[in-house]
Amino acid sequence: MQGPVAIILAAGQGKRMRSDRAKVLHEVCGRPMIRYVVDAARGAGAKSIIVVVGFGADQVRSALAGEPDIHFATQEKQLGTGDAVRACRPLLEGYRGPVMVLVGDEPLLRAKPLSDLFERQRSERLDCLMGTAVVPDPSGFGRILRDSAGRFLRIIEQRDCTPEEAAIREINPSCYVFELPVLWEALNQLDTANAQGEYYLTDAPALLIKMGRNVSAVPVLDAQDVLGVNTREHLAEAHVIMQRRIQSRLMDEGVSIVDPSNTSIDGRAEIGPETTIYPFTVISGTVRIGRGCSVGPFAHLRDGTVLEDGAEVGAFVEVSRSTFGAGARARHLAYLGNARVGAGANIGAGAITANFDGRNKAETTIGSEAFVGSGAILIAPVTVGQGAIVGAGAVVPKGKDVAPGQTVVGVPSRPIGGERG
Amino acid sequence: MQGPVAIILAAGQGKRMRSDRAKVLHEVCGRPMIRYVVDAARGAGAKSIIVVVGFGADQVRSALAGEPDIHFATQEKQLGTGDAVRACRPLLEGYRGPVMVLVGDEPLLRAKPLSDLFERQRSERLDCLMGTAVVPDPSGFGRILRDSAGRFLRIIEQRDCTPEEAAIREINPSCYVFELPVLWEALNQLDTANAQGEYYLTDAPALLIKMGRNVSAVPVLDAQDVLGVNTREHLAEAHVIMQRRIQSRLMDEGVSIVDPSNTSIDGRAEIGPETTIYPFTVISGTVRIGRGCSVGPFAHLRDGTVLEDGAEVGAFVEVSRSTFGAGARARHLAYLGNARVGAGANIGAGAITANFDGRNKAETTIGSEAFVGSGAILIAPVTVGQGAIVGAGAVVPKGKDVAPGQTVVGVPSRPIGGERG
Amino acid sequence: MQGPVAIILAAGQGKRMRSDRAKVLHEVCGRPMIRYVVDAARGAGAKSIIVVVGFGADQVRSALAGEPDIHFATQEKQLGTGDAVRACRPLLEGYRGPVMVLVGDEPLLRAKPLSDLFERQRSERLDCLMGTAVVPDPSGFGRILRDSAGRFLRIIEQRDCTPEEAAIREINPSCYVFELPVLWEALNQLDTANAQGEYYLTDAPALLIKMGRNVSAVPVLDAQDVLGVNTREHLAEAHVIMQRRIQSRLMDEGVSIVDPSNTSIDGRAEIGPETTIYPFTVISGTVRIGRGCSVGPFAHLRDGTVLEDGAEVGAFVEVSRSTFGAGARARHLAYLGNARVGAGANIGAGAITANFDGRNKAETTIGSEAFVGSGAILIAPVTVGQGAIVGAGAVVPKGKDVAPGQTVVGVPSRPIGGERG
Repeated sequence: MQGPVAIILAAGQGKRMRSDRAKVLHEVCGRPMIRYVVDAARGAGAKSIIVVVGFGADQVRSALAGEPDIHFATQEKQLGTGDAVRACRPLLEGYRGPVMVLVGDEPLLRAKPLSDLFERQRSERLDCLMGTAVVPDPSGFGRILRDSAGRFLRIIEQRDCTPEEAAIREINPSCYVFELPVLWEALNQLDTANAQGEYYLTDAPALLIKMGRNVSAVPVLDAQDVLGVNTREHLAEAHVIMQRRIQSRLMDEGVSIVDPSNTSIDGRAEIGPETTIYPFTVISGTVRIGRGCSVGPFAHLRDGTVLEDGAEVGAFVEVSRSTFGAGARARHLAYLGNARVGAGANIGAGAITANFDGRNKAETTIGSEAFVGSGAILIAPVTVGQGAIVGAGAVVPKGKDVAPGQTVVGVPSRPIGGERG
Repeated sequence: MQGPVAIILAAGQGKRMRSDRAKVLHEVCGRPMIRYVVDAARGAGAKSIIVVVGFGADQVRSALAGEPDIHFATQEKQLGTGDAVRACRPLLEGYRGPVMVLVGDEPLLRAKPLSDLFERQRSERLDCLMGTAVVPDPSGFGRILRDSAGRFLRIIEQRDCTPEEAAIREINPSCYVFELPVLWEALNQLDTANAQGEYYLTDAPALLIKMGRNVSAVPVLDAQDVLGVNTREHLAEAHVIMQRRIQSRLMDEGVSIVDPSNTSIDGRAEIGPETTIYPFTVISGTVRIGRGCSVGPFAHLRDGTVLEDGAEVGAFVEVSRSTFGAGARARHLAYLGNARVGAGANIGAGAITANFDGRNKAETTIGSEAFVGSGAILIAPVTVGQGAIVGAGAVVPKGKDVAPGQTVVGVPSRPIGGERG
Repeated sequence: MQGPVAIILAAGQGKRMRSDRAKVLHEVCGRPMIRYVVDAARGAGAKSIIVVVGFGADQVRSALAGEPDIHFATQEKQLGTGDAVRACRPLLEGYRGPVMVLVGDEPLLRAKPLSDLFERQRSERLDCLMGTAVVPDPSGFGRILRDSAGRFLRIIEQRDCTPEEAAIREINPSCYVFELPVLWEALNQLDTANAQGEYYLTDAPALLIKMGRNVSAVPVLDAQDVLGVNTREHLAEAHVIMQRRIQSRLMDEGVSIVDPSNTSIDGRAEIGPETTIYPFTVISGTVRIGRGCSVGPFAHLRDGTVLEDGAEVGAFVEVSRSTFGAGARARHLAYLGNARVGAGANIGAGAITANFDGRNKAETTIGSEAFVGSGAILIAPVTVGQGAIVGAGAVVPKGKDVAPGQTVVGVPSRPIGGERG
């Protein structure tokens, strides 16, 4: 297996989610949590990723299927995090080098601090390096105990803390880089002499110190990075923080977001400068928006939407798997699905592409500078030619293409003279 | 009158609301404020409730009409809270036992602490027990003065506070349990020697102590419980806190609410686990949503909406007094009013039930697995049979039922062969 | 030039905006930032306003064109704020009296404190009076240095601060009143011996003290007033604060705003008491709403909308340049543009005015008590008479007026007997 390696623990059910789904598949900003952890690990330089599955194993395997750098190890019984890592041993037979261990329910982990950890573990030749965080409220986390010189001693679980230790605000977010095969020696020494009767990975660093190994801990993560999602409330918190990150980046790049807390933008969206996103806009999936566009208020852009420069999508308009050419606009109450709208075309209020016949989806093509009147219905597959006019309230049957420059009106639509209606 | 009794003071105008409506009738999350106080009193075990009305008395009576446990007492003149409670005396003639006094403009009161108060007043045989709250900012409230042993001494109005007293953060939210008939003796001794020339109920506890009675005060309420609504800004604050409570409960029960602060859910709504509520969704009134449904973004579910398991209501769709069978879906731009949508039916973008003819509302029935095309209009009363197809843009006149399996198209709609359009 | 005079510095590009537009033209709540500063200056009593333009000069001139009290001075090179003020000298030749200097990127400045500054400068015969603010986080601002008696000494730029000075929280928001012609003497003495090689207006107060002039500084501004917009994130912050101000005022006046943080209202909107604005409502431009109206959720009222008393605009309805008579209503999924809707008229779900033919906009008139059925399309210009009925799904062609009391149905619409459909 090619290193560096990352192991992502994703075997837990997350009972507090009250869900049949594996916890790591619950979504933040439209993507399963574990996706973000995978992205962070890759961004940090991991060449191979082992996902440890257990509860809902098939769901997790299938969500991450077909990605050659991702491997799966199965934890048969929930015997603790130490046991989960041990489940990766067959896959890592013969591998020597660093392995990062992360948990799949921390979707706010970012690549940069993880990459710093890899770098530091290598340059300082450490057998174990923990990434820690100093947080305002440490409750629930294991605390990082250091000696008076600041050297890492061990991790203390919350339940074992004295009041003094409980006041420590440096916590263990379960983010480690271990050197292999050294780690296996430590894991072999883990026991289950604890309240849960489980093998705790958190015991490994102190064991490695006892074994005379080089162990260190460094607070490279910030409080938001380490938000662990255990409930649906946590999921909602993660959404808010993720939105702030996504939108901050976009604003830095020159996008105006009028009211960020009333806007929801998928992290995969690309938006050009000088574009304005008005309040109550949802952009989900992979969407590409050009320069100087106007989106919202109340716009819903779904996966596969492309808006070229200067396009406008306004209130109560949903666009899905469709392209708007430069300067094309749909300003109010419209649905565009599987459509190609040419440059400068105008889609009237209430206009709709009927792209689904109950079984299949079909495409609608609208030529540049075409004018689709208010309340018009275009039944796909159909083409409205360049500069053509579809009258208000017209229903264009499927296959009844409108020639370039032609005007059609009525139900079903029929050609008339050139006046726009 | 059956006890325990609760008295709710609801006679005030609330001048700062600048409204013709009685203050307690202003709404929080779709329900008049006093509704929540009534619910809390009932939940705490009150068997009879006396609402003291004054300003807008008829409005309040009519808002609470027809509920056998609710009685009304009229305060003829605004002579203070002590006078308001005295107005209940005729209704309580002969009643011996506890009476809880609450104010109708604290919509965030919850049953549990009130029930604790009833319990404690009974078990400790108290003549007066006050529920108090320790709040970050006590300004505006009366302060609770205690002796060095922590025993309650008296309530001091804000205007009478020394600077030391003003710094006390334990406040009087006007939440008392008194024993009857002892209370009447104290109320007889109230005078109007104060700035407002009113009878203050807040003087009663100290008077009772003077009379040698057992009086206590216990901080069972939290800061949010006691938000008193005096302005429309307070109303908006109460909305936010109430939403947090409602949504927290739902998330605990297994509902995913993607962005809680961008979601508004009525406290009467029931939502099954594994259902996802996307941003910019409003659920108002009594709505029941099953398991594994998908609602929003931009969905508006109104009173009387029922979504069975797996149903989907998407962007720019309003549903009112309608039922969606399991797996039925209306994903974009639609209006369903007084409709029954069968299991697995699909409602296209822009489809509308015309349920109102300007005078009356009528019903639309859509059979299971039926397909209503984009932009179709169904004029109620009308039935679309099981598995039937209404073509895109078709207008189905009222009474022109579509037979099961039949396909109709056009304006007005007429049957054609079986192809979906 | 008539005094008092205000100079507004608006020559900067604002590189961090990453924009081709002059910084002061970026919008907050629908209006260019500089508009708010102009309004504040006027409200404070300025009779003449000089806007100093530079980057994007033509854009700024054209945005403020045609207002007789506004004059423009051009700063040819970006040589600093002192140089910018000097660019106004030709316009102020011969003027003696007070001149207020403001920056165009502080859109939250309000008239009242500025008017206090003018008043105090005059009554205390000051040669220079600075308006300052005490802020929680002074970083980025110049600090106000005072002597032990609290007298103003000088402004220290952030980069020149000792740690003690950096801790000063009274800052210079670039808000001055100078007496002319005294100011010119000080500006003549400015030099460019600083890191940026620019003439700093911030050096002028200390220079005036050296020259024996009366200089003072008074903290009349609050922390929000002085938010300077340098990035699109700042723009979004200004939006939130401005919304809070606008909505606070409206709630004080008796408007219920159910969820203020989910509502966006233009500062130019007028709204009557007892009107309720439901969540996810956007009101933009000059909109006038009467008493007892119901707006939203999900309503979009655009410039030129007038709702008379008791009118209702509901979910997924956009209204633009249209008037609703008393009690008229459009409760769901509708678009009304360039329309006059008579008192008591009802606009059904999905109804649309086709007001744009691709070239021109035309008007639709709907009589009082008229009923426009669901999904009806009215192609402007057209008139629907008083009490007339347009059947559900009807398309009324342009010019085919519907007589008072008449019922029309079909596509295109034709008269039938009186029944509403």
